[in-house]
Amino acid sequence: MGETEVKVVGPERLKEFASRVFRQFGVGQGEAEEAAAILSQADLRGIDSHGIARLHAYSRMLDCGRINPAPEIRIVRETPGTATVDGDNGLGLVVGPWANRLGLDKAEAVGTSWVAVRGSNHFGIAGYYVMEALGRDQIGWAMTNTTKIVAPLWGAERMLGTNPIAIAFPGSEEPPIVIDMASPAAAFGKIEMAIREEKPIPEGWAIDRNGQPTIDPGGMADGGAMLPLGSTRDRGGHKGYCLGAMIDILSGVLSGANWGPFTPIFTTDFEDPPRTVGIGLGHLFGAMRIDAFVEVDEFKRQIDDWIRTFRKTKPAPGTNGPIIPGDPEREAEAERRESGIPLGAAVVEDLREVSQMTGVPFD
Amino acid sequence: MGETEVKVVGPERLKEFASRVFRQFGVGQGEAEEAAAILSQADLRGIDSHGIARLHAYSRMLDCGRINPAPEIRIVRETPGTATVDGDNGLGLVVGPWANRLGLDKAEAVGTSWVAVRGSNHFGIAGYYVMEALGRDQIGWAMTNTTKIVAPLWGAERMLGTNPIAIAFPGSEEPPIVIDMASPAAAFGKIEMAIREEKPIPEGWAIDRNGQPTIDPGGMADGGAMLPLGSTRDRGGHKGYCLGAMIDILSGVLSGANWGPFTPIFTTDFEDPPRTVGIGLGHLFGAMRIDAFVEVDEFKRQIDDWIRTFRKTKPAPGTNGPIIPGDPEREAEAERRESGIPLGAAVVEDLREVSQMTGVPFD
Repeated sequence: MGETEVKVVGPERLKEFASRVFRQFGVGQGEAEEAAAILSQADLRGIDSHGIARLHAYSRMLDCGRINPAPEIRIVRETPGTATVDGDNGLGLVVGPWANRLGLDKAEAVGTSWVAVRGSNHFGIAGYYVMEALGRDQIGWAMTNTTKIVAPLWGAERMLGTNPIAIAFPGSEEPPIVIDMASPAAAFGKIEMAIREEKPIPEGWAIDRNGQPTIDPGGMADGGAMLPLGSTRDRGGHKGYCLGAMIDILSGVLSGANWGPFTPIFTTDFEDPPRTVGIGLGHLFGAMRIDAFVEVDEFKRQIDDWIRTFRKTKPAPGTNGPIIPGDPEREAEAERRESGIPLGAAVVEDLREVSQMTGVPFD
Repeated sequence: MGETEVKVVGPERLKEFASRVFRQFGVGQGEAEEAAAILSQADLRGIDSHGIARLHAYSRMLDCGRINPAPEIRIVRETPGTATVDGDNGLGLVVGPWANRLGLDKAEAVGTSWVAVRGSNHFGIAGYYVMEALGRDQIGWAMTNTTKIVAPLWGAERMLGTNPIAIAFPGSEEPPIVIDMASPAAAFGKIEMAIREEKPIPEGWAIDRNGQPTIDPGGMADGGAMLPLGSTRDRGGHKGYCLGAMIDILSGVLSGANWGPFTPIFTTDFEDPPRTVGIGLGHLFGAMRIDAFVEVDEFKRQIDDWIRTFRKTKPAPGTNGPIIPGDPEREAEAERRESGIPLGAAVVEDLREVSQMTGVPFD
């Protein structure tokens, strides 16, 4: 996280804390536990920005009534292979798992499914949902739109969120390939880190409030925007913009949620968008039963072969060669299960505030 | 195309020529017409690399028996929402439309579908397939793997194809949003053009045969590789690699086709891959019935709003502001329907050779 580490906490203790905090706000027992498990998985997998560090923001949103702790999640439209779900403004960490499971069940019946979700909120790491599919021998998809922070190519203002997409493929002897990527060139967390460390950012990450390319992280944060993957027209920035747009439309427009610059904010620190074009935040979950296409064992053997083939790629000079999507997160998890989750000073302070807000002890 | 234009031909005449050429090789009447229509649509939409310029390569592959002109395309596995199709080594321009239609029909029944295809060949522009879905008020997906030319991030050799993905969303008063993008930072056609024009290429497009970044297009062509979208780790090259890998696995592994470096070559000029891991080339077609999620009219109104909102984005300095995916192709089509398709000298020469090969008159 950049700041001095002040505390290392076991993943189970953090999960228990988060679960009790959610319970305190009126979230049901099973829902609170799964919501906490999603945050914990993010921390374990080294995605600190989406783990317990977010509990403070969720808590404030719950505390001021901006998120419904006990939503009546319902299916508003349905076919054998699809559903549109209204999350009743519940936690994304509660609505997401509900909708994802519905999709996995639907795929059991007809081979594949898509579940579009509106009326939701920030759903944690997209990777959580697609890893749920692995145990059912399915290929899971997950995507969501998020608060605007990215400029379209040739734009000078924030219009799209970081809009992540995830998908996972199970191996047999090899661990699964887990893809979980946001659509800008770099993560906003890296801008925040550069601000704290008073360092410049690489070219191609951001523009300032006038739409000029900038290597000053403060210039981005102060009314500027992130750039889409590819950064410039020359290097394929139109493709990153297309990817972000695709995820925005599939998550937002298809479900009847808000989209683009109208996507709701995640924290209480920002102004609401100027216009409402739908209901809450949107997600899209997909599922494909592997045996609907090929024998499961054969698929997994081929994935093993794919992984081993790509690991044997001739390395670029100065590197150890290509890695497989999911490698860094799996390595982080192996280490952190052993040694615990390191928490920076700011996160510890936030969690103490959550503790005061809820009466759930944290020390 | 870079070289001097020597000929401008009406799209209908080119389509007729291509159709008669395919017929001459034993392709059925309806199939030959649709295959020619796909090439023609590429030319009209300004995607010269995938239009009539490819007829020569298709012809050579048909001529030497590398492609089956009259395949028995069959469904090898099926559920209500999915199918795996074996294209019997037919033209991708014949197998692709067959499988895509199957997917659109399946989505009518259960709301959504995926059709995985193996035993196929180069299928033309991915955009053709997703535009077929528009008229049925469906959202179409199309992707394919292709001959290796892209290095994974931190790799020093060709392991993945340009692996395009396409998706389209219909508007009401506005034209559709049509996304059709390959997964490297730049198209190989741009490297070829730079070689002809003896110009350097931008940083971030390619590496040479030693895996070193290069701005010499010849250095890439001579045993080097293209870089994935994002180019470097700093600027998100791992995400472009993930995108290419996702498309490779969904098109190749899921269907039982070849994948990665084992994907078959498209022309007779290259050596076959060292190993066979499946059957032919693979595609994946997806379909989502819009009314399975929301009212079709409401969806289209929202897409209109999305388009108008994004057109109003504050422009970056020195630009006219963001465009909507599909704009350049639609503008090219409007112009070329009027004025015809410009053909470079090399293409004209190739087409004369095709004419000699088949006895179908050209010019």
